[in-house]
Amino acid sequence: MDLLKIEDPSFLKGLSNKELVELSQDIRKFLIERLSNTGGHIGPNLGVVELTIALHKCFDSPKDKIIWDVGHQSYVHKILTGRASQFDTLRQYKGLCGFPKMAESEHDVWETGHSSTSLSAAMGMAIARDLKKENSYVIPVIGDGALTGGMALEALNHIGHEKKNMIVILNDNEMSIAPNVGALHNVLGRLRTAGKYHWVKDELELFLKKIPAVGGKLASTAERLKDSLKYLFVTGMFFEEMGFTYLGPVDGHDFESLFENLSYAKKSEGPVLLHVITKKGKGYNPAENDTTGTWHGTGPYKIETGAFVKPVNVPPAWSKLVSETVRRLAREDERIVAITPAMPVGSKLEGFANEFPDRMYDVGIAEQHAATVAAGLATQNMKPFLAIYSTFLQRAYDQVVHDICRQNLNVFIGIDRAGLVGADGETHQGVFDIAFLRHVPNLVLMMPKDENEGQHMVYTAIKYDDGPIAMRFPRGNGIGVPMDEKLNTIPIGTWEVLKKGSDAAILTFGTTIPMAMKAAAILEKKGISIKVINARFIKPLDEKMLLELFKENLPIFTIEEAVLQGGFGSAVIEFAHEKGYHQAQIERMGIPDHFIEHGSVDKLLEEIGMTTGDVVDRMSNLVGKKQKRA
Amino acid sequence: MDLLKIEDPSFLKGLSNKELVELSQDIRKFLIERLSNTGGHIGPNLGVVELTIALHKCFDSPKDKIIWDVGHQSYVHKILTGRASQFDTLRQYKGLCGFPKMAESEHDVWETGHSSTSLSAAMGMAIARDLKKENSYVIPVIGDGALTGGMALEALNHIGHEKKNMIVILNDNEMSIAPNVGALHNVLGRLRTAGKYHWVKDELELFLKKIPAVGGKLASTAERLKDSLKYLFVTGMFFEEMGFTYLGPVDGHDFESLFENLSYAKKSEGPVLLHVITKKGKGYNPAENDTTGTWHGTGPYKIETGAFVKPVNVPPAWSKLVSETVRRLAREDERIVAITPAMPVGSKLEGFANEFPDRMYDVGIAEQHAATVAAGLATQNMKPFLAIYSTFLQRAYDQVVHDICRQNLNVFIGIDRAGLVGADGETHQGVFDIAFLRHVPNLVLMMPKDENEGQHMVYTAIKYDDGPIAMRFPRGNGIGVPMDEKLNTIPIGTWEVLKKGSDAAILTFGTTIPMAMKAAAILEKKGISIKVINARFIKPLDEKMLLELFKENLPIFTIEEAVLQGGFGSAVIEFAHEKGYHQAQIERMGIPDHFIEHGSVDKLLEEIGMTTGDVVDRMSNLVGKKQKRA
Repeated sequence: MDLLKIEDPSFLKGLSNKELVELSQDIRKFLIERLSNTGGHIGPNLGVVELTIALHKCFDSPKDKIIWDVGHQSYVHKILTGRASQFDTLRQYKGLCGFPKMAESEHDVWETGHSSTSLSAAMGMAIARDLKKENSYVIPVIGDGALTGGMALEALNHIGHEKKNMIVILNDNEMSIAPNVGALHNVLGRLRTAGKYHWVKDELELFLKKIPAVGGKLASTAERLKDSLKYLFVTGMFFEEMGFTYLGPVDGHDFESLFENLSYAKKSEGPVLLHVITKKGKGYNPAENDTTGTWHGTGPYKIETGAFVKPVNVPPAWSKLVSETVRRLAREDERIVAITPAMPVGSKLEGFANEFPDRMYDVGIAEQHAATVAAGLATQNMKPFLAIYSTFLQRAYDQVVHDICRQNLNVFIGIDRAGLVGADGETHQGVFDIAFLRHVPNLVLMMPKDENEGQHMVYTAIKYDDGPIAMRFPRGNGIGVPMDEKLNTIPIGTWEVLKKGSDAAILTFGTTIPMAMKAAAILEKKGISIKVINARFIKPLDEKMLLELFKENLPIFTIEEAVLQGGFGSAVIEFAHEKGYHQAQIERMGIPDHFIEHGSVDKLLEEIGMTTGDVVDRMSNLVGKKQKRA
Repeated sequence: MDLLKIEDPSFLKGLSNKELVELSQDIRKFLIERLSNTGGHIGPNLGVVELTIALHKCFDSPKDKIIWDVGHQSYVHKILTGRASQFDTLRQYKGLCGFPKMAESEHDVWETGHSSTSLSAAMGMAIARDLKKENSYVIPVIGDGALTGGMALEALNHIGHEKKNMIVILNDNEMSIAPNVGALHNVLGRLRTAGKYHWVKDELELFLKKIPAVGGKLASTAERLKDSLKYLFVTGMFFEEMGFTYLGPVDGHDFESLFENLSYAKKSEGPVLLHVITKKGKGYNPAENDTTGTWHGTGPYKIETGAFVKPVNVPPAWSKLVSETVRRLAREDERIVAITPAMPVGSKLEGFANEFPDRMYDVGIAEQHAATVAAGLATQNMKPFLAIYSTFLQRAYDQVVHDICRQNLNVFIGIDRAGLVGADGETHQGVFDIAFLRHVPNLVLMMPKDENEGQHMVYTAIKYDDGPIAMRFPRGNGIGVPMDEKLNTIPIGTWEVLKKGSDAAILTFGTTIPMAMKAAAILEKKGISIKVINARFIKPLDEKMLLELFKENLPIFTIEEAVLQGGFGSAVIEFAHEKGYHQAQIERMGIPDHFIEHGSVDKLLEEIGMTTGDVVDRMSNLVGKKQKRA
């Protein structure tokens, strides 16, 4: 059918299962084609085609609330709710968001991006529904990965206790939660979905015969009994213990099973967990056969071959540079242990893991635990490297404060994807880290100007044994500078003058340095002489250099790809006032006080006034002001 | 025995069980007496006397690592590790800390205060031990409450998966995790502790006979079978599912059971969870009979009666004022729902809960979940009141950013215990909230000058429907001002001039306002005229009033009982520079960049230079400077 003509999911009610299968095929074809141009989360979405259709057929959205955990698997939902025509603009500036967005559709009842929030949101909605005495279903859809996040477990515990009506869909796309016990598992699943067990006599009898008889060697019988019973209840028992009615597992690509189970779930009282097995990438061979997660989210690709359309000869990716430098150092320093919360691929830790399998821990989607494991390691004189994205470090703020920094432990935090990240948008921009870390006592926070300084900074962090140290680095690739062979430590709290100048100074670090240098060159031609400083330590500041600047009475312009409030520029003016240089003329450029949507980083920087042209204009103005005053 | 003579726990090795019982009695007597003078966490410590003795007898601290979750139950541990003589100074400035502290003793291997960190820390230590090929035990001791915290569940999941050797002590002081199934539970516990089941034939046979035979009406048999088996494995099954060997439950006041189980645990491979049942307040009637949590932590009390030594005729507690105002408003606004992460007593929500049982949710120690439940409620046009301590809000930073503020939802966050909290010390000071909230878009952040303004602010927050709004308020009581009958809204972002003045202006809010007024009165007598402004909105600032101040060119002095870096004063100077008033003379007073230990709030303020005298001195200097310049 013509997906572009879909306005809302009501048309599904009239379709036969055969027609739904055809619709699934159309949607898959559509996704594979469109995403080959735009990129996007192809794997997760191909996996939930039938599940999404089934949910929209069985429930009445938006009266019934379907809540997508993480939200990168909401493309099929977007198609079924009338947004197919916008897929050409997926994840582009002002285009279709890659995650649920209330402003796009009334069917998007909850916005996400970070993992594991759906159950808590669903609980809030269920409480509201019951207080208002409304009748509706609340249906969070959560993946098996997201379920390991602490807040999802907190929510399971609370939902099970409160016994609110809710249908949790566990979208298990690993195919392997309990591979050894699949047979009994399925028996049990069918038993339980069978409406009070009325029509399953044969299966139950057959099953009970498999329990070993009492007698014989008692010890081993007891063991076998225990194992049999344990198998019997895996994994349903876990959820039943938590207070849920467990249904499943069901084949998430089979409409008949899905409808049967969803209809039973609708009739159940209290919280239900329906365990649905899906296959990531289903229906597109390259994605379906992916075992490493490469096809979770991709850029554009060639449909026929599955080859990614990638630029050639690019400098090394930042994640790879950092992880490989840590790996290199780990050869000489046995204290180094790498920890990632579910991002071994994104953080490019595969090489490290291969070389040091005992010294690499992927702890799952569990940022809080990851940070405190690092702290625990550091108490034993190890040197943990916590590899974490800026946006996900938000989840571990308290652990950074309470466990790592308060105890002044030698943890090296590698803050990946710092700054704007582009297509993932609002939920993923790494723009808060400076503001939420700068005020934490004991922490050193730095950002390198290029990949060569990056490797020296990694070395510096590993050698630093006076407390926690964090290095921000951006998404994407380095800028292609030559790499030194020998690594050196950079003295903590020292900045670097990149260009001399006498009319004003730019203080910046990381990704915005090339922009500052370009602007300075342009201004030079206009006869304005700008000093450019690589302010690579955000904390501590280079107080000596700053005091010199204040004494010279140079106007100062700070640039940071991070929120302005409480950020680096804020630190500079705080210091000026603290030292009695309140008359210092300091202007700041950075991310304004609103959430930044999705789009290319260049486009976003343009929108918020952070281009070379903007720097030139503001510096001209700043110097003009100064000259006027003088 | 003379507890003051204990130097380390090694003396325990030679004691008989009878002597250990006597020691327990001595320790209880000591705790009851000493804490009657100093106050402290009496309930939790009386509950773990035998458990702590048993751990120190069975293990070799500090080689073996005993990790106290939360840490308020570490008093017995402190006595056994040579610190009994310091109990007169408990929780006082430079005195014995109420939580584990590495600087106090090598036996304190991990510092805490916030809940649920022990398992992650233990995992880090276990990884380190194995990499270093050392032999030692890692023994986290975690309460049943702390186990509901998301990071503890993340850790359980990871520890069970990795199969590291570790002995988790579940200190279950509820006596009621599974009250209906206690009998079978104990059978199972004894079965499992019995070293591969060798000597329990009789019990096992007896037990198996209880499983109903197959036959009869199949449906009900299946149900009964399910229930029997479920009972069989509660709650051990949960932990076994998580990958732990489950031992227990055992009576945590019986040395024989404790030793038997601990010795079995020491022989086990992989992670073990020993479920220990203890009684909070054990051995002191008032505490033992407490059902509400009053005796969890207390001030001084009279030993004979258990009556608390409390000041009379004090103004209402801030928590009570806020919760009762919310309750009053809830009578007219059905949208209001209160949420607390395990602090119904601390947040004084008992009255609200009694009057609106359906509209009050205690979600357990689960700050992340609490915040996002509030967000979920707000999406349904409800008005959630999230009652949370400042220090625990750190755990929900990401949820405040990603779920509440990014979606601009109408959540009212009541930030209790903001500012210095005193005796609880480093881990509990509520001094980071301004710095970690001010940069979050969409949030309104305010703090009232007294309890009357406090009630109007609560009203303002409830009436505000343009997004999230947070009100900070301090630990302790109001200042005794008359309370208005009728509630009014305070226009968002407006400050209030409390005192006129022409030489300089003090901008402050909340608890530091009385100090500012006092200092201004003293300065007045010296002929220095100070304007005092109640800067009750920390975000947004009163830009109109600030611009007027800048135009008047008055020196400005900001005071905040919160960290300086990125705080309120920082916001004021940011704004000055943004608007081109960089020459404005602005000085800031607040918490410096290090963690603030325990002690009375007055003493702490004195130590960090935040007394009336300090304000007078700094203002005199500031005005002097200005006069010099002028």
